[in-house]
Formats: sequence, C-alpha cells, structure tokens
Amino acid sequence: MEKKIITISREFGSGGRTVGRMVADKLGIPFYDKELVDQIAVESGFAPKFVEENGEHSPGSSLFSYAFAPQGVPGVMNGLSTADFLWNIQCSVILQLAEKGPCVIVGRNADYILKDREDALHTFIFADMAFRAERIVKRYGESDKSPETRLQEKDKRRRVNYQHYTGRTWGQAQNYNICLDTGVLGIEQSADIICQAVMRSREPAKESEE
Amino acid sequence: MEKKIITISREFGSGGRTVGRMVADKLGIPFYDKELVDQIAVESGFAPKFVEENGEHSPGSSLFSYAFAPQGVPGVMNGLSTADFLWNIQCSVILQLAEKGPCVIVGRNADYILKDREDALHTFIFADMAFRAERIVKRYGESDKSPETRLQEKDKRRRVNYQHYTGRTWGQAQNYNICLDTGVLGIEQSADIICQAVMRSREPAKESEE
Repeated sequence: MEKKIITISREFGSGGRTVGRMVADKLGIPFYDKELVDQIAVESGFAPKFVEENGEHSPGSSLFSYAFAPQGVPGVMNGLSTADFLWNIQCSVILQLAEKGPCVIVGRNADYILKDREDALHTFIFADMAFRAERIVKRYGESDKSPETRLQEKDKRRRVNYQHYTGRTWGQAQNYNICLDTGVLGIEQSADIICQAVMRSREPAKESEE
Repeated sequence: MEKKIITISREFGSGGRTVGRMVADKLGIPFYDKELVDQIAVESGFAPKFVEENGEHSPGSSLFSYAFAPQGVPGVMNGLSTADFLWNIQCSVILQLAEKGPCVIVGRNADYILKDREDALHTFIFADMAFRAERIVKRYGESDKSPETRLQEKDKRRRVNYQHYTGRTWGQAQNYNICLDTGVLGIEQSADIICQAVMRSREPAKESEE
C-alpha cells in the first residue's frame, strides 16, 4: 500500500521537525507544523501562540481551565474543557489535511488520529539526552533551567497528553512503523530512511520469505 | 562511531530472526541465535532445549523452580534461582561474543546487556497481529491455541523477562536505535535499512543542521 501521509512524532530536541521538513522537501509534498497550529487557531478562536503552547500539553495543566474560552465565541465550547475543545478541533483539522493529499504532519498525536488510514506511515524520532540538550541550547538558547530539565518537562507534557487522548504509551514502538534515533543515525540519514520507505511503498508488493 | 555489533530484539512472528540472518549475510559477519543457546547450554549444564524455551521467559514461571538445577553440576548455582543463574550466564556469553568481533545477536535482552558498547546498534522488529499470526502458522503450523493467543503469550513472557532483568519497558523505542514494522516495511527492506545504517556508520561523521 502506497504511503502518502507521513506523521512525525518526536522527542523535544531530537530534530524530528527538521527530519519532517527534509522528508517533505525530498518528496515534494506539503509540510504541516506551524500551518497546523494556524488552522487550529482559526477554527478554535484561540491565538496561534496559545494553540502552539498548549495543544500537545497535559490536559491536567492549570492552563486548561474553562476560563480560557476564546473571546468572541461564547458558547461554542459546549461545556468541553479547553483541552478537550482544542483536541476535537485538532482531530478534525488533521483528518481534513490528510484528505487533501500527500503531506508530512509533525506532532499533535497525528499517528493516533490517522491510525486507520492505510496510506499513512507513522514515525517516531528520538535521541539521547546529550544530543538533544546540545541541540536545544543551540536552537533556543540558555534559560534558567538546565537543558535536561527543559527536555524532561516538555517530554512529560507530550507523554501525558498522548496517554490521555489516545490511551497509548508515547514512544512505544508498536504505535509507529519506523522509530529512529537521530543521536546515532543523524538527522539526514533518518530523513533518507523515511523517504526510501515511502518510495518503496510505491513499488508492487514483493517479499522474500524464509 | 562505527557499529559492529547489531542486536535484534523482536516480537514473536515478526520475522526478526530472518532480518537478523539477512543482515549478517549481507555484512558477512557471524549470526548468533541457536549458537548462543548452545553456548549458554554448555556453560550452564542445561540442555539446549531447556535454555531455548526458558532463557527469555518470565522468571516467575513455574518452570523456574530451584528443582531444575542441572544434573552433574551440584552446587554451581550458588543459591541462585534457575532463572537468575541462566541470566548470569547469558550476560557473560553475550559480552564475550561481542568481544570476539562484529556479529548479529538475536534476542536474549542483548540490547540491554550491551547497552554500554558504543559500537553496538540496537534494533527492535515488530509487526501487527495479522502479519505475525499468518507467519507463525506458516512456519510452526497450527496448534490447539489460536495464533493470536500464542503470540500474546510469547510476547508477554518476553516482556516480563525483559522488565524483570532490565527494569526497562520492552518495545519502548528509546531502548533501541532503530525500530521497524516488518508488517508495513517487509522483511527485506527492514534488513536493508539496518545494513545501510551500519555501512553509513563507517563513514566519517557528517551532519547537516538547520
């Protein structure tokens, strides 16, 4: 079955977003990351920054009180918590994007949301702490917290959010089709492996058996 | 860092052993599966069949009573349970094999036992239930249990054994460097991906950054 939709789940700092962009460039298909945030923002009435900061975070977080209903759209949340409201819109936006045609989607539990699409290839990108710590400092600069603490906090939020909305374990290999350690393989090779898998999925089925 | 030792952890029926043999053949390096069992048998005094059936199974299994001390080697178990005794020998054999030179090692928690070797590439091979069920029936025939039950039981034993001796979660992507779904990628492509990663690890480091 030809794989047309590629989802990239990733540990913070692993380079998963870069892998996704490289895959999209090499395959010549759209790349949804910020675009996804913007569309969820439009449909939810929340500011893009709020969506970006909270869409993958723990639903138990204090940020997710009902008090955060978007201005100007009273009543649209139908009694849902902010987190559940955002989740519903996120599902709907991701399902619509996948319907539009081949693309790469980064984060936002897209592997789960698109789990029933046979033309989707689900990937998970991760790396050891040292590799990720160096990357986030280079990319986002220093902060008052150690890079390790920042990584642990962000990963924990993504893990809790994933567990809450999918009932599955974040980073469990069987939730994906390909999991790659960029710390060992490098970002470029990881993108190559995913592209090759997509390209081979276009060939007629052929399998050697023992 | 050049990868010389490849460990293959695998779900039952996923074709992981075949992937391992293909990788060993393509790279021209030894393949340890049955050979590992035989060496553990020699060093432990247990029959190879006993080692094969129990070396990756739950330490709480009824098979693992102290009554199973090997004949002719009284006292060598030093008060260890059969499971712990086998585990110690398994660790020692795997560490020795890795010292001997490049190789592919299938199963037996080798990813954990060799986790500190920087020249080791750790892989996990898995597939969906339908793919694996078809394979085990083709390979091992029917039995009085459904293929799904046989898969679940065997996976559970491996999972419990892994958890008990390593404190880690079996199949959690971050324990490995590459995890591949043979149900989607196929056995041959999975072997190719691993071979390519080994061959690229021999090239001088080169990494593009965003």
